[in-house]
Amino acid sequence: MAFKEKWSYYQTLTESMLRVLADQSDTPQLLYDSMTYSLFAGGKRLRPALCLATSEMLDGTATDALKAACALEMIHTYSLIHDDLPAMDNDDMRRGKPSCHKAFGEANAILAGDGLLTLACLTLAQSNNLKVINCVMRGALDMVSGQSLDLNGKQDAETLLTIHEKKTGALIRASVLAGAYSAGANQKQVQLLSDFAEHFGMLFQITDDILDVTGSPELLGKTPGKDRTENKVTFVTLYGMDVALVEASHAADAALESLQGLNLDSSFLEELTRFTLNRSW
Amino acid sequence: MAFKEKWSYYQTLTESMLRVLADQSDTPQLLYDSMTYSLFAGGKRLRPALCLATSEMLDGTATDALKAACALEMIHTYSLIHDDLPAMDNDDMRRGKPSCHKAFGEANAILAGDGLLTLACLTLAQSNNLKVINCVMRGALDMVSGQSLDLNGKQDAETLLTIHEKKTGALIRASVLAGAYSAGANQKQVQLLSDFAEHFGMLFQITDDILDVTGSPELLGKTPGKDRTENKVTFVTLYGMDVALVEASHAADAALESLQGLNLDSSFLEELTRFTLNRSW
Repeated sequence: MAFKEKWSYYQTLTESMLRVLADQSDTPQLLYDSMTYSLFAGGKRLRPALCLATSEMLDGTATDALKAACALEMIHTYSLIHDDLPAMDNDDMRRGKPSCHKAFGEANAILAGDGLLTLACLTLAQSNNLKVINCVMRGALDMVSGQSLDLNGKQDAETLLTIHEKKTGALIRASVLAGAYSAGANQKQVQLLSDFAEHFGMLFQITDDILDVTGSPELLGKTPGKDRTENKVTFVTLYGMDVALVEASHAADAALESLQGLNLDSSFLEELTRFTLNRSW
Repeated sequence: MAFKEKWSYYQTLTESMLRVLADQSDTPQLLYDSMTYSLFAGGKRLRPALCLATSEMLDGTATDALKAACALEMIHTYSLIHDDLPAMDNDDMRRGKPSCHKAFGEANAILAGDGLLTLACLTLAQSNNLKVINCVMRGALDMVSGQSLDLNGKQDAETLLTIHEKKTGALIRASVLAGAYSAGANQKQVQLLSDFAEHFGMLFQITDDILDVTGSPELLGKTPGKDRTENKVTFVTLYGMDVALVEASHAADAALESLQGLNLDSSFLEELTRFTLNRSW
């Protein structure tokens, strides 16, 4: 299957199972509505794709990893809902639509985030794999740490790296490792995939910083007119655009190199890496 | 051991382990501070006591259930932090101290709650018992459902019962069941304990509604001068104080009856039930 078809297949798998899990969640209507409003707001399902592709590459079936993939997407979505709150980033728009608190009010948005994080854990408990639960929740906790550092930390180069690593990198790493553990990866494979995930996470964050400057807000679905780089130290503000572009390219190369070490058909993850280097989303 | 000594023993066990878990959480200083500020704010550790006592009664060791007990207390604490937020109940005081968002700001309080819920899941993953993870997270999700109904639901008698059952009852039930599953309870025991937990949860909530009227705010550690029953339908506002007192007594009797069916030394849970019926906290 070609790369884009494959991604689309992973998206479809994920979205069907997310719908099943939400429908089985036994939550009252308004909580269900606010949770699913954000869950089905057109996310790219990057974390599920990383998880499912890693599992498949290691001869796991995609369905083995599917609950973990859904939990990862729920965790990602809850973090966006809480990030957008007035007390946090105060973003009125998300993916071209009013953010959760704009659509449902602040209290319901807080609960929608809490509900999604909780449903993620409940879903993981059904995956019957304690290593998977452990690595996903470790990633989720590091993500909160990254948020806290971003909110309160010093704005220097070292802190920026830690923030990147935790705020975005940790859940991306957890996505890859959850796929690996679902498929019963051996220690050497886990190590190589952990390396891949770290480089991929760095690539994703640097290109995110680049897009903050070059991307059109409408295309990115962000609040028009809101300067997201205002008062914010990013790779680009720290090192300039040229260095950022070079570092993104280095991170992609390092990610691809880690994949080579596996001696497996890693074509999807390779193409995903190249696609991320050149992304406009 | 006498009842109060035993409770104090459970509290000490829980607090030592909570400290270990927080210290091992690898969170940045401010996140750690805001999480532990609320976690060690003088909670009574009711849910851990229910979990540990249930496990011990069934010949499990208290330590088997200890991680679940700590996870339950983290979940309870996160729910208080988020409930107190300006967008929710807007409570400035909690347990006689400034609430988390008053002490650390709103954004940090949101993250402290997110961090505690996440650390709870991570802790559960170390308990190595999928039934325990499942029942605790089911309780945690029902609690969010209860919050949502409380915030948005109709204020009639039927809705009040559902809100009670979910908002407070679900986590109390999960506490008892987590103790039962930790100790490998059989199906009949699980059923009786589930009944006990439901009655105990109802008792706890009705006495809470009674204390809203009769308790001194200073004693309860709540915001002085804030009428917590304003615009709020409670057992007392719906049925009057006399009926509430009778119903509390009925719930306690039913809880004690469920315990009798176990034919085990349930003295701690019995005394806890009587203590709750007459509580001033």
